[in-house]
Amino acid sequence: LATTETGSRLSHLSCRACCTDLPSDRPAGVCPTCGGALLAEYDLGAFDARAWWHGLRDRDRTLWRYRELLPVADDRHLVTLGEGGSPILELTPSSDDGIRLLAKDDGGLPTGSFKARGMAVAVSRCVELGRTDLFVPSAGNAALALAAYGARAHRRVRVYVPDGTLPTLIASCRAYGAEVRTRPGTLREVGAAARTEEQGSGGFDLSTLREPYRVEGKKTMGLEIVDQTGPNGVPDAIVYPTGGGTGLVGMHRAFELLRSVGLLERIPRLYAVQPEGCAPVVRALRDDSPRVDPWADPHTIAPGLLVPAPFASERILEAVRATRGAGVTVSDRAIVESMRRLQREHGLSVSPEAAAPYAAVSELLRTRAVRPGETVLLYLTGTGLPFSIDALDAALGPGDQTRT
Amino acid sequence: LATTETGSRLSHLSCRACCTDLPSDRPAGVCPTCGGALLAEYDLGAFDARAWWHGLRDRDRTLWRYRELLPVADDRHLVTLGEGGSPILELTPSSDDGIRLLAKDDGGLPTGSFKARGMAVAVSRCVELGRTDLFVPSAGNAALALAAYGARAHRRVRVYVPDGTLPTLIASCRAYGAEVRTRPGTLREVGAAARTEEQGSGGFDLSTLREPYRVEGKKTMGLEIVDQTGPNGVPDAIVYPTGGGTGLVGMHRAFELLRSVGLLERIPRLYAVQPEGCAPVVRALRDDSPRVDPWADPHTIAPGLLVPAPFASERILEAVRATRGAGVTVSDRAIVESMRRLQREHGLSVSPEAAAPYAAVSELLRTRAVRPGETVLLYLTGTGLPFSIDALDAALGPGDQTRT
Repeated sequence: LATTETGSRLSHLSCRACCTDLPSDRPAGVCPTCGGALLAEYDLGAFDARAWWHGLRDRDRTLWRYRELLPVADDRHLVTLGEGGSPILELTPSSDDGIRLLAKDDGGLPTGSFKARGMAVAVSRCVELGRTDLFVPSAGNAALALAAYGARAHRRVRVYVPDGTLPTLIASCRAYGAEVRTRPGTLREVGAAARTEEQGSGGFDLSTLREPYRVEGKKTMGLEIVDQTGPNGVPDAIVYPTGGGTGLVGMHRAFELLRSVGLLERIPRLYAVQPEGCAPVVRALRDDSPRVDPWADPHTIAPGLLVPAPFASERILEAVRATRGAGVTVSDRAIVESMRRLQREHGLSVSPEAAAPYAAVSELLRTRAVRPGETVLLYLTGTGLPFSIDALDAALGPGDQTRT
Repeated sequence: LATTETGSRLSHLSCRACCTDLPSDRPAGVCPTCGGALLAEYDLGAFDARAWWHGLRDRDRTLWRYRELLPVADDRHLVTLGEGGSPILELTPSSDDGIRLLAKDDGGLPTGSFKARGMAVAVSRCVELGRTDLFVPSAGNAALALAAYGARAHRRVRVYVPDGTLPTLIASCRAYGAEVRTRPGTLREVGAAARTEEQGSGGFDLSTLREPYRVEGKKTMGLEIVDQTGPNGVPDAIVYPTGGGTGLVGMHRAFELLRSVGLLERIPRLYAVQPEGCAPVVRALRDDSPRVDPWADPHTIAPGLLVPAPFASERILEAVRATRGAGVTVSDRAIVESMRRLQREHGLSVSPEAAAPYAAVSELLRTRAVRPGETVLLYLTGTGLPFSIDALDAALGPGDQTRT
């Protein structure tokens, strides 16, 4: 179905923090010199970008259509459940605010969230590099995605999730054959526990940005947006729910990459949305801070956004600042109300994380971060199928109800 | 993103049972003469099928890429959540049985099932023809799909579901704004109750095959298979879980249509899979019966397959017979075990209905209905996300456990 003349242009890995280069033909975690995030670099010297772009129309719709800009060298190593190509929907404006509102809906991806993108690419690369034993700490969605792709690739998988994670999600991970370990605390503590317990286990750590390839999968969010809207039709702003922040880093990489090969002129502004109870990235952006300090006493009803100390936060801040975006917070109450409105008024059932960008629109308009006449794309990161809005409503404090 | 030179080729409606023709420019339910199913007919006299087929590559991936062969005349009436374009996955054979096994996975469609296809098209057509008040009796998935597309189109929706329908599914329908009415019995009794209660209500009945356009949406399953595999690569056999049977009728219509315009030579054999506890279609096929008689004492753990007396069953039998397919039954135990195996061995979480085709493969091989060297496509109709395999296991009788 797809042409395969060229294959991956992966060249090497680099650490942007300490400018170390590393070969990409062996498994790698963080930078061995400084402990920072390693990113994939591509050799695009002889890359005929225009011919490649034109040829995309003859390829199928999964994220592997961009394989030249992805790290998997051999198609036989692809671990796929058909991920990618999620639709961009028009959201009829409910008020006369003059913006065009779009939503890219990743809720239909395998395992119901955008996490499939990163795990498809990272697990494929694990297969290519011979890793058989994989683990990840996760608020839930990444665990489910790793469990699914691990099952598809016949890898051994352990997932570490916070106490209190949805029992249905834990049962699903187990049904894929993954071992599930629940640990106390937020993703920060769960991640620390996982890395301690896994020392010497031979397990490969797929934590956010602690290996170089999940972010390559997330890069396809940006590639797809340009592919679907056309380079001249890209939105002015993209509003993205920010937990670990890989999506922002990935989209920024995609846009820079397409610009570097002459396929894109204007890059959308990236807006990071976080809940009021856990907004370390938004605070750092507002304070013009060079890095993200841990958020004390984090709390939110959106599990995927309960990330008080994201790793490699310089890369996240860079993505927002380089695109001239900003950060914005929303209340849990506004998140739940946005879930209700998206479902009832637009026919979209989304996860709490995915509702956060919708909740942020009024604040972005109020502060004139986005303006009438602009096109704003909300990134809907996951399906609402496993969630009960009423249960989330009940979990809000009595002073924070969306309804009485 | 898509070219719109041509638009729908819809011509009129016809009843195959009594050869009545009707105009298609007003709302229609069943045949006013004989009460049979009305089907859409297209005027393809001046249709340049080869040019159209070639031009598909420049269109986006939703089912609206086939709009010339769909009934919606005006693009402004499209009610879309991005449905269609579901992936076809390779299922690594677990035994050395010599067949190539593919799976088309509709679990990522809006609301998590293939029902989105029919409802997207039927609700769009309701918008086009000015229907504002819609209802459907359903085992669950069609209700959810109508609730979602109804919300998207700002229509009033009532759904009738059997007592005992998953509470999460009922809550989801309500979150879309639909009114949910639970009624006793199987879909047969629920449907009868709905039609009685709705007399004089002004509500439009979207029951399976009781209006002409849901099956047009289902037709896109067949169009997509040919589109994705190429006309020369179509599978030898398609194995389909059969409740109301619209999917079989729709796929058959798609293949006949593509053959009639010269785009397809070989038509896949269609196999209807039903559970042992409710197999009226399979029985009629085995008995060479001209119609499907109601199944007494129906029972199965797959709600979507609990259809003891499908409407317009002649059309279902015709689809299977004309393609030289057959019927096959599977036990509830085999369905649950197939859910487990698809999830653990292939990374696919599917609904009980969707697991039935996988459960049927060994029987199809044993009876030599499919043979080594053939390509067999399993139609996976829905996601497993809302289901607990352990709960389904527990619901099996003690003599019917998949595990002890």
